[in-house]
Amino acid sequence: MDISLELIKEIARPSPTNIVLLVIDGLGGLPNPETGKTELETANTPNLDKLATKGICGLTDPVGSGITPGSSPGHLALFGYNPVTFNIGRGVLEAIGIDFDLHPGDVAARGNFCTVDKTGLITDRRAGRISTEKCAELCRLLDGLVVDNIKIFVCPVREHRLIAVFRGDDLVPDVSDSDPQQVGVAPKSITALRPEADRTASIANQFIAQAKATLSGHYPANMVLLRGFSQQPHFPSMSEVYKLKPAAIASYPMYRGLAKLVGMEVLETGTTIEDEFATLRQNYSSYDFFFLHIKGTDTAGEDGDFNRKVGVIEQVDNTLSELISMEPDVIVVTGDHSTPALLKGHSWHPVPILLYSKWCRPDKVNEFSESACLLGGLGRFPATQIMPLAMANALKLTKFGA
Amino acid sequence: MDISLELIKEIARPSPTNIVLLVIDGLGGLPNPETGKTELETANTPNLDKLATKGICGLTDPVGSGITPGSSPGHLALFGYNPVTFNIGRGVLEAIGIDFDLHPGDVAARGNFCTVDKTGLITDRRAGRISTEKCAELCRLLDGLVVDNIKIFVCPVREHRLIAVFRGDDLVPDVSDSDPQQVGVAPKSITALRPEADRTASIANQFIAQAKATLSGHYPANMVLLRGFSQQPHFPSMSEVYKLKPAAIASYPMYRGLAKLVGMEVLETGTTIEDEFATLRQNYSSYDFFFLHIKGTDTAGEDGDFNRKVGVIEQVDNTLSELISMEPDVIVVTGDHSTPALLKGHSWHPVPILLYSKWCRPDKVNEFSESACLLGGLGRFPATQIMPLAMANALKLTKFGA
Repeated sequence: MDISLELIKEIARPSPTNIVLLVIDGLGGLPNPETGKTELETANTPNLDKLATKGICGLTDPVGSGITPGSSPGHLALFGYNPVTFNIGRGVLEAIGIDFDLHPGDVAARGNFCTVDKTGLITDRRAGRISTEKCAELCRLLDGLVVDNIKIFVCPVREHRLIAVFRGDDLVPDVSDSDPQQVGVAPKSITALRPEADRTASIANQFIAQAKATLSGHYPANMVLLRGFSQQPHFPSMSEVYKLKPAAIASYPMYRGLAKLVGMEVLETGTTIEDEFATLRQNYSSYDFFFLHIKGTDTAGEDGDFNRKVGVIEQVDNTLSELISMEPDVIVVTGDHSTPALLKGHSWHPVPILLYSKWCRPDKVNEFSESACLLGGLGRFPATQIMPLAMANALKLTKFGA
Repeated sequence: MDISLELIKEIARPSPTNIVLLVIDGLGGLPNPETGKTELETANTPNLDKLATKGICGLTDPVGSGITPGSSPGHLALFGYNPVTFNIGRGVLEAIGIDFDLHPGDVAARGNFCTVDKTGLITDRRAGRISTEKCAELCRLLDGLVVDNIKIFVCPVREHRLIAVFRGDDLVPDVSDSDPQQVGVAPKSITALRPEADRTASIANQFIAQAKATLSGHYPANMVLLRGFSQQPHFPSMSEVYKLKPAAIASYPMYRGLAKLVGMEVLETGTTIEDEFATLRQNYSSYDFFFLHIKGTDTAGEDGDFNRKVGVIEQVDNTLSELISMEPDVIVVTGDHSTPALLKGHSWHPVPILLYSKWCRPDKVNEFSESACLLGGLGRFPATQIMPLAMANALKLTKFGA
C-alpha cells in the first residue's frame, strides 16, 4: 500500500532532527561482462560500505516495474511525489533545465529554430543544428517582444533548441503545438484546446509571425517551432507536507528547478562534489532536510564510460567522511534511476538505497552494491516511499490512528 | 506502484526484438512431506536451471496475497491486464472454454440440464450428471431455436453442463439467472437488471419455456437452468497497448480464447508439448511476441499426482533447448498460478518466474525453484508487472518523462 502525501501531512511534525538525502544520479548499473560486477560493485567504497553495515539497505523502483524514468519523474519520486500523477509540462521542464526564473502564471514552451523554404514548408526541423552560440545570438533578436501586453522571453538551450516564456495576465497553457514534428509541411497554427485559451493561442501565433519576419534573412534558422506549452504546476510544498525546512544543493539547473517546484530553498554552490559538501557544511544548522545531488555518475553512464562512473562513485565515497562527521540523524544514499554504462542511458533497473539512522533496524548487508542490497532489510519498494521512511527514522512522524 | 496499461501504451514502441512468454500452467507447488521438495524442486531441469543462472528470478502474485486465481484472472494478469478490473462474464468464459466462436454482441450463458418434478420444482440441479454424450444429444434438440429474431446456439460442455448463446440485434446481457442454485424450488423467471435488458430477459424466458416443452419426455434431463449471462468484453488489444504482433500457441481452447480476447493471433497447433514448440519454430519470424501454454502441469496438480507433475516439468525442460536455440531476445518462464498436487487444485501461493535477456541484471539464483526464486533479483511482485518488465528488457519501452 503506497502511503499518500495527505496521510503523511496529517502525521508529520517538526522536530530538531535532520535528514540528508544524497542522490547519486543514475547510480544503478549493469555488470561489466568481463568482471560480472556493476559500476557500484567495482568501485572501492569503504565509507559507503561502512554506512551500509551500520544501516539498512534495499532496492527501489522510481516509477514501476520496467519503467525507465526521466530525471524529473525520478526526482519527484525521491521527494515522495507520485511521478505518474504529479506532472510537469515539457515547456516548464525545459525552462527549469536552463535555470530560467519562471513566475507563477508564466506559460513556457520548448522550441526549435528550423528551416522553411520559400513556400513556408519545413525542410529541416533543426535548422542544420546551428551552434549554441548562433542560437543565443538569434534568441537575442526575438527576446523581449511584446504582444497584447504579454512579454515573451526567448532563451537558448543548446544547438537549435530554445525556450519561449510568455509572461502577463490571464495566460492559459492549453494550446496545441506549432511543431508538426515532420518536414515537408508548414508549421501548424496554434489553436486553443479549450475556449479560455483562445487569447493565448492568438498571442503565440502573433509571436511566431513576428519571429518569422525577424528571422527571414537568417537562413537556415529562418523560423521557429513551439511545443509543450505549460505552466508551473502547483505541488504541495515539502514544508507543507513534511513540516520540513528543506534545502537543495545541486550544481545542475534541472535539479535546482525540480527542488524549487516542491518548495526547497536552493543554495548557491560550486561545480564540484567538494563544493557541494562544503555548501552542506556551511548551511548545516539552518535546515533540517538537505537534498544533495551528484551529477557525474549519470553523465558518465550516458557516455557509456564504465570506468569514469566508477571513478565518480569513488570520489563521492571519498567525500562521504565529511558528511558522516556532521552526524546527520538520517542519511539516505540512493539514485533517481539506474544509468548502466552498458546501455548508455537511463534504465528500468531498480536502484540501490541505503538508509542510516540510530533507529533503523540494521540488516546483514555490509557493502553498498546492487547484489548486496537485494538481500537488504528494506527489500524492494517504490521510491515514493523513501521519504516516509526517512521521516520515520528521524522520528518526525506520529502514530497513525489510535 | 502498479503501472497502468495507459502509461505503457504511451511509451511502448515497435522494435525488431521479440519476447517468448512460456506459461507452465499451475507451475508453483508445495513440498512433498517426504522429501521437503516441491514438484519444481523435485524435477530434474538442467535447461531451466541454466536459464535461471544467466537470467533473473523472482516470485509473482497473480491477483494478490492469499488470492487463488482461476485460469482467466491468472492469464489476464500475465498479459498485463489487472484481473480485478478486467472482468470476463461466466457465460463468455464457458463459451471460450469450448472454443465457441463468439461474435461481438452475442450474449452467452452457462447452463445445466436439471430434473424437475411434476409441479415444476427442481429435484436435481445436475440431472443425475448425465453423460457428456447424452448432453450433446439433448443440446442438438435445443440448438438453433429462434425467438423474436434471435438465434440461440446450445452446445454441450461436459456431463450436464451446456452453454446457450443468443445471437441477434440489440441484446443486453444484464439479466438475472434462472438457476436458483438450490433444489425444492422452481427455476426463477429471468428478469432485466436494467430496463434496456427487458427484451433479452423475455427472449431468454421464451427459450427456456420452449426447452422445457422439448425436454418433457427426457427425464431426468427434463429442464435447463441458465446463469452468468454476459457479453464478450472489449479489452484494449495487446497490439494497441504494447505495439506487439502477438501470437498464442495453446492446445486447450480456454487459453486460445483468452488470448483471442486480448487480440493475439491464435496459431494452429497439436496436442503435445513438442507440437507446440514446433509451431513456435514454424512461426518464429512472423510475430514478435509468443504466448506458449503448457497444460499438463496444472492437470496433474489438480489430479493430486505429484510425480506426473514432476514429469511434465521435466518434459518441458527437455524441450526447452529447442526454444533456447531460437535465441529469443527475452524469455519469460512462469505459471498463471500455483497448483500444488497436495491441494489438488489451484492455490494462492506465489509463482516462480525467470526472465532472461541480454539486459537483465542477473542475480545469484542458479536453479529454477520456489525457494531459489525467493532470493532472486526480481523480488516478489504482481504478475501484471511482468509484461512491462519483458517489454523493457526487449528495449520496447521509451523513457517516461524527461
